[in-house]
Amino acid sequence: MSEAMQAFQLVEARRIKAQRTARPVAGRDEVLIAVKRVGICGSDIEYYRHFKCGAFVARRPFVLGHEVCGTVAACGADVIGLSVGDRVTVDPSMPCRQCDYCSSGRYNLCRNMRFLGSASVDPHIDGGMREYLTVPARNCHRLPDSLEWSEAAALEPLSIALHACSRAGAVCGKRALISGGGTIGLLVLLTLRSLGAAEVVVSDPVAGRREMAVKLGASAALDPAGGGAAQQGEFQLFFEASGAAQAVETAVYATARGGTVVYIGTVLQDVPLPVNLIMVKELSVLGSFRTVHQFGPGLQLLADRRIDVRPLITHTFPITAVNEAFAATESPQAVKVQLDFV
Amino acid sequence: MSEAMQAFQLVEARRIKAQRTARPVAGRDEVLIAVKRVGICGSDIEYYRHFKCGAFVARRPFVLGHEVCGTVAACGADVIGLSVGDRVTVDPSMPCRQCDYCSSGRYNLCRNMRFLGSASVDPHIDGGMREYLTVPARNCHRLPDSLEWSEAAALEPLSIALHACSRAGAVCGKRALISGGGTIGLLVLLTLRSLGAAEVVVSDPVAGRREMAVKLGASAALDPAGGGAAQQGEFQLFFEASGAAQAVETAVYATARGGTVVYIGTVLQDVPLPVNLIMVKELSVLGSFRTVHQFGPGLQLLADRRIDVRPLITHTFPITAVNEAFAATESPQAVKVQLDFV
Amino acid sequence: MSEAMQAFQLVEARRIKAQRTARPVAGRDEVLIAVKRVGICGSDIEYYRHFKCGAFVARRPFVLGHEVCGTVAACGADVIGLSVGDRVTVDPSMPCRQCDYCSSGRYNLCRNMRFLGSASVDPHIDGGMREYLTVPARNCHRLPDSLEWSEAAALEPLSIALHACSRAGAVCGKRALISGGGTIGLLVLLTLRSLGAAEVVVSDPVAGRREMAVKLGASAALDPAGGGAAQQGEFQLFFEASGAAQAVETAVYATARGGTVVYIGTVLQDVPLPVNLIMVKELSVLGSFRTVHQFGPGLQLLADRRIDVRPLITHTFPITAVNEAFAATESPQAVKVQLDFV
Amino acid sequence: MSEAMQAFQLVEARRIKAQRTARPVAGRDEVLIAVKRVGICGSDIEYYRHFKCGAFVARRPFVLGHEVCGTVAACGADVIGLSVGDRVTVDPSMPCRQCDYCSSGRYNLCRNMRFLGSASVDPHIDGGMREYLTVPARNCHRLPDSLEWSEAAALEPLSIALHACSRAGAVCGKRALISGGGTIGLLVLLTLRSLGAAEVVVSDPVAGRREMAVKLGASAALDPAGGGAAQQGEFQLFFEASGAAQAVETAVYATARGGTVVYIGTVLQDVPLPVNLIMVKELSVLGSFRTVHQFGPGLQLLADRRIDVRPLITHTFPITAVNEAFAATESPQAVKVQLDFV
Repeated sequence: MSEAMQAFQLVEARRIKAQRTARPVAGRDEVLIAVKRVGICGSDIEYYRHFKCGAFVARRPFVLGHEVCGTVAACGADVIGLSVGDRVTVDPSMPCRQCDYCSSGRYNLCRNMRFLGSASVDPHIDGGMREYLTVPARNCHRLPDSLEWSEAAALEPLSIALHACSRAGAVCGKRALISGGGTIGLLVLLTLRSLGAAEVVVSDPVAGRREMAVKLGASAALDPAGGGAAQQGEFQLFFEASGAAQAVETAVYATARGGTVVYIGTVLQDVPLPVNLIMVKELSVLGSFRTVHQFGPGLQLLADRRIDVRPLITHTFPITAVNEAFAATESPQAVKVQLDFV
Repeated sequence: MSEAMQAFQLVEARRIKAQRTARPVAGRDEVLIAVKRVGICGSDIEYYRHFKCGAFVARRPFVLGHEVCGTVAACGADVIGLSVGDRVTVDPSMPCRQCDYCSSGRYNLCRNMRFLGSASVDPHIDGGMREYLTVPARNCHRLPDSLEWSEAAALEPLSIALHACSRAGAVCGKRALISGGGTIGLLVLLTLRSLGAAEVVVSDPVAGRREMAVKLGASAALDPAGGGAAQQGEFQLFFEASGAAQAVETAVYATARGGTVVYIGTVLQDVPLPVNLIMVKELSVLGSFRTVHQFGPGLQLLADRRIDVRPLITHTFPITAVNEAFAATESPQAVKVQLDFV
Repeated sequence: MSEAMQAFQLVEARRIKAQRTARPVAGRDEVLIAVKRVGICGSDIEYYRHFKCGAFVARRPFVLGHEVCGTVAACGADVIGLSVGDRVTVDPSMPCRQCDYCSSGRYNLCRNMRFLGSASVDPHIDGGMREYLTVPARNCHRLPDSLEWSEAAALEPLSIALHACSRAGAVCGKRALISGGGTIGLLVLLTLRSLGAAEVVVSDPVAGRREMAVKLGASAALDPAGGGAAQQGEFQLFFEASGAAQAVETAVYATARGGTVVYIGTVLQDVPLPVNLIMVKELSVLGSFRTVHQFGPGLQLLADRRIDVRPLITHTFPITAVNEAFAATESPQAVKVQLDFV
Repeated sequence: MSEAMQAFQLVEARRIKAQRTARPVAGRDEVLIAVKRVGICGSDIEYYRHFKCGAFVARRPFVLGHEVCGTVAACGADVIGLSVGDRVTVDPSMPCRQCDYCSSGRYNLCRNMRFLGSASVDPHIDGGMREYLTVPARNCHRLPDSLEWSEAAALEPLSIALHACSRAGAVCGKRALISGGGTIGLLVLLTLRSLGAAEVVVSDPVAGRREMAVKLGASAALDPAGGGAAQQGEFQLFFEASGAAQAVETAVYATARGGTVVYIGTVLQDVPLPVNLIMVKELSVLGSFRTVHQFGPGLQLLADRRIDVRPLITHTFPITAVNEAFAATESPQAVKVQLDFV
């Protein structure tokens, strides 16, 4: 008979409830993971606050969390290369591998994506805010001993930053402006530096985030209210990671002729844009959605500490205080909030 | 003493006046061209109607026309490879060759561009609506005998279409939607077909242009009022060549996940855009400005008649009827209007 | 009880034998195809002559043929989008869709590729030289009525030419030299022309092939013995489709600084190369292996007759004369030899 | 009357002689530089040993040295942005800015390149092994105070490494093998690490260089005699920086399917290559010649000490001991040898 475990289920807006439920059993190609650490992402916060995230409306309770790491507790019969006790981090994407996007290598755009901790399909797919979860073995990346759980749980957002930078093409020697000094904006900063970008400026209205940006290697940090982007010279690259309509528009003005704007942030309204400038300056305005092929590279950068994400983890709560953890994300001091399974 | 000639000068909005003026003399690296044919471009029409074009305000009378071809009438002392009597078409771009954009191969974005028939610098640079003009020899492309003057004068807009398609990357096998069935839209259609694009659909409110699009190889032509783009399946490519705000917005909706939107049209107002869709669909929204490196390829396609631009030339006027020619551009039947020097 | 059919099995070098065998049954995701036309590829000829092809040594009799088209004779239970009677052409690649190459969009390099009519895995995979074969439904491309069987069976080699051209990047306006006027070389010629390449020169020792090249749009055709490549000006692109060691070396000499060489031909020995020239001229020497993502684009080009492959099909034999067909491939006049199922 | 200075002229193979000569005068767009440090490059060594370098045969005595930095001693009338006393490093490339390669952004392939300290044109162009030289102001890059002269003189070879890595495209997360642990090989190592490459292995027959490679961040270092590359797993990238024929061949074997080989080393003989493997593995074999657009990015990486080249500078000699300096380059312990002007 299968054993029981605790799952922390989002049952309605602003309420996660601990439930006693059956521990899942790994299929032939799957592993069972005893969860150690889960990060809270912006989309988790959206679901938490509104019981929906953009177009994805939750129809029934489910478990959030797609920034997950833990220890392998059991392996399915066909699993090779992983053993019980291995420390792993989990790629939350389960693309179909059959559609045209998958076969062309852009599985982040998969027509039939299944994604941990998401209401994008129904039944919804439970995420990592529970004691155990099963995932395909291929979604697990084994961790070097030196890597802390907090870092391992940050690989997923780091891989998003890597993808955004990859969308921008060669960054070496280029000047970049990042709007938004939250988790993704700061990870883009760290990534750009580790890929050879020249100067990187971060824009954020919160003073504490600007300070952190400078500590992490930004050549300057701006308050967008000051309108200072224009005084900072030309930027070949602009990463919009704030979701603020004003920043989306500023991107078109502040990016140099021939430059590249990458949209990573979630923008909830239509934004009036000077599209003629996009043409006259021959800008490339590129969406960047989730991540693709970046778990391996990101893990390597973390393992070598060429990127150190630990300063970004401002809050850690025990999983039993999950509602308090979500409340903490509202603090302007919060960058990444994680949940610990002890 | 230098000889006289007629120049057709834009003296104020909606008035071009024939002036008797000195024939220019070719510098050492220049050739003197006896003009045979000049096409009227959308930017010429803007200058004609408003004495300005976007940010470029005319401060004094000048000569329009940058779609120019003619016969070499004299060669400067250092010119090699061209002789008197050669039929040539003229590249109107005179980049500085020194700035960072020039040295990186994107001379269309040159910081110090001089452009024929434009008020972008002061003194303004006279264009081709005159009996003779001088241009650097390197801006001349010799024409094969088989090419008609009308085709030669259409190489400049064709090169703009080629650049726009080049911005989109590999087009072979892709489905494309073009909004706008004017000169540029139809040239994009011809270009896409000659670069291997699969089906190309053209959207234009004018029935005559839709008919021409189908004759030229479009798989379908839509009236944008009908909102039919959505019924046409997925488009990997969208070329916005109409300048209409509605089309700019439609581009974001009608382009498939992972697809590419190219803005070529001049859009006079800010347009509210669903920027979140750009992110979620991971679109690439690319400005395309003028042209770069495309005169040679375009001339080859014309010379082989792999692209035949002649059906697009709906009106030809003698240069002495230049004001009538500009009036004709207002007809919905007009695609390309050209001026003949007899 | 399953019905019988004829299969034309390669039983040893230079001997194909008709065998009575059970007609295969389509699996849930498969279709049964009544074969109409099969082309003979260079690798088929290798297997036929030597009972091996490069590193792939046949261990037991098997059925050749991967340029296959026919009519759907039965559909598995889960097949959607295809019906009995549909005319289809078959993509012979069955990649695993799981390995790193598949997930990055380069499934032609799949670590676990299964390929029709090949001894690359054991048991070998029977190809199309039989009355019926089963293939995954997703490997079938439905044909427009206007397309002849002979053209449909040529889509596979055309897709190889398309891939080779795709490896070379943008070809529009570039001058190309193709060494080898066999099927692949001539298909590269047709493809380059339909993708906007400027002049294309073909080099082949056989006069008849040079004549065909010029008829198909080559601007010139050379006898490599004459060493004339150097007199033809600069080539930005060089496609090596002959497999001749001399041509492999010539490619490095004849390609312009900054140019691209694509190796498509099978070269059986090591070739001494002036590698310093590759460095000093900054060449890009690119292998091109089979094809990836090109069946759709190729079919569109065939359907529109923007590429007409019919002149290349120099010989057609009934399947019962399959040994004679292989003998015919040795004629210098032969380009593509096909087998007909009546 | 112009002042005198010392120039250290290569007068024949293996003999550099101090000459008293007139100090040059800066033209309108030029600056006069008081040289502080010059590095000795492999091509300098070739000229020194043989009075020629590959195809470039010296016809008369000239001054070597293109890895040059110093202090601005005078500015021409039109120079802006530089002042007397500025510390600068010099880009030795003087492309024509007019030819097709220049206008397409690949000025390293310029048809009319003038290069400091080279016999590639006649009269030869004197390099930096003299007290003063004049160069176009645009070839100067101003140094931050923190940068040492030794580092500034190493920017030129670093920019070559950056270009080689740029040829390889995105390197983040990839495994690389570098053959050759000399200056360029080790700079490629440092560059790959600073651009996010995963593991980098260096192969060199000299134990001291292997030790230095590991100190500089290589995950392993191999003796090529041991044939160990095959035991190191798959390499997506292979940089050939040794010039050894064996390494050129190994590259084709050791690089993974779909991988990229970059040739940077000078290889003096033809090398028999398994070209069929290039095709079957679909390799990209890319020449990399000198450098283009990489002085700015390289200077930024040096200025931030994200790349520290100082450990590579194994020997420094006063300019008066220039012949001893060249002798020192023959020691297996030597990596970069520089000349000091005191």
